[in-house]
Amino acid sequence: MDFSIRAANVDDCKDIARMIMELAEYEKVSDHVKVTQKGASCSSSDSRLSPGTSDADLEQDGFSKNPFFHGIIAEVPEQHKTKEGHTKIGYALYFYAYSSWSGRAIYMEDLYVMPEFRGKGVGKALMSKVAQLGLAAGCHQLNFAVLDWNKPSMDFYLSQGCFDITDTMGYHCLRCEGEALKHLAQL
Amino acid sequence: MDFSIRAANVDDCKDIARMIMELAEYEKVSDHVKVTQKGASCSSSDSRLSPGTSDADLEQDGFSKNPFFHGIIAEVPEQHKTKEGHTKIGYALYFYAYSSWSGRAIYMEDLYVMPEFRGKGVGKALMSKVAQLGLAAGCHQLNFAVLDWNKPSMDFYLSQGCFDITDTMGYHCLRCEGEALKHLAQL
Repeated sequence: MDFSIRAANVDDCKDIARMIMELAEYEKVSDHVKVTQKGASCSSSDSRLSPGTSDADLEQDGFSKNPFFHGIIAEVPEQHKTKEGHTKIGYALYFYAYSSWSGRAIYMEDLYVMPEFRGKGVGKALMSKVAQLGLAAGCHQLNFAVLDWNKPSMDFYLSQGCFDITDTMGYHCLRCEGEALKHLAQL
Repeated sequence: MDFSIRAANVDDCKDIARMIMELAEYEKVSDHVKVTQKGASCSSSDSRLSPGTSDADLEQDGFSKNPFFHGIIAEVPEQHKTKEGHTKIGYALYFYAYSSWSGRAIYMEDLYVMPEFRGKGVGKALMSKVAQLGLAAGCHQLNFAVLDWNKPSMDFYLSQGCFDITDTMGYHCLRCEGEALKHLAQL
């Protein structure tokens, strides 16, 4: 299938927000998603220096100075657009991370391909691009998370040589948010 | 106990490397650790534009332009130094991350206090500082990983209002590295 992979820009935020919601529906967590294409209170060009909105504001968080993430887009030619008119049919978000054991790492936050375009190599091409970007930046690891019921994705990742460090090394992911996070900060 | 928390600087890398190794010994993974205070081939001031070394090079990776991580240090006054002469007795490393569901996040890569200074609030003060830094940058989540056998740490985190998203939501951490990562990048 004819498709291309390119770096995301601010004009892609509407489609990224649409696909984040589609992915969340697939992951059965759409009620958890607070992403918006654009927040109302963007005032600083440096996202680390602005308070942010209460939700995920893709334009401010990904396309200001010191962005919190980067993105890549999979796109098909106009003649292969969906019946809704979409040509942006997949995406991956990533950011740079660090392991004190092994150094530079890249974290893939999302990998998504619209259902009607699956099985054609788009997902693998997106993931391969993230791996390329990581290696180019001197990263030794590509890390990401998978929900345990999502066996098709898990099988795909294991077939690519990835391994489950929760199963093999006992890694558990912990989170602090909301009132607990505010309380923790008030030492 | 009298101690202070401050941002780490490049002069702390020797002590951070020492404590990373101490933490790895506690976590029983010291044979996995490839951290060095300083690599041999540092040529660019922007860490994202330099190839990096094969190992974790704290000075280059954390204290160049576009660092891969940030750090904070817990320090005691000279009169409380250890018998080996150390006044830097704890640290945390962190970096900014992103959740496409809920937006800006901060990831705590390491939290360590030297054994003889535990139980005096140093660990909680370090973690609180990371929470403060995250909230100041508009983050909604503090994320980190714990090894499942490390019950003292797990109990501490749960007592602080953190929750285990591996247990409650089925999050599994996956990793691609080494030859598998190179192969993935060669699509």
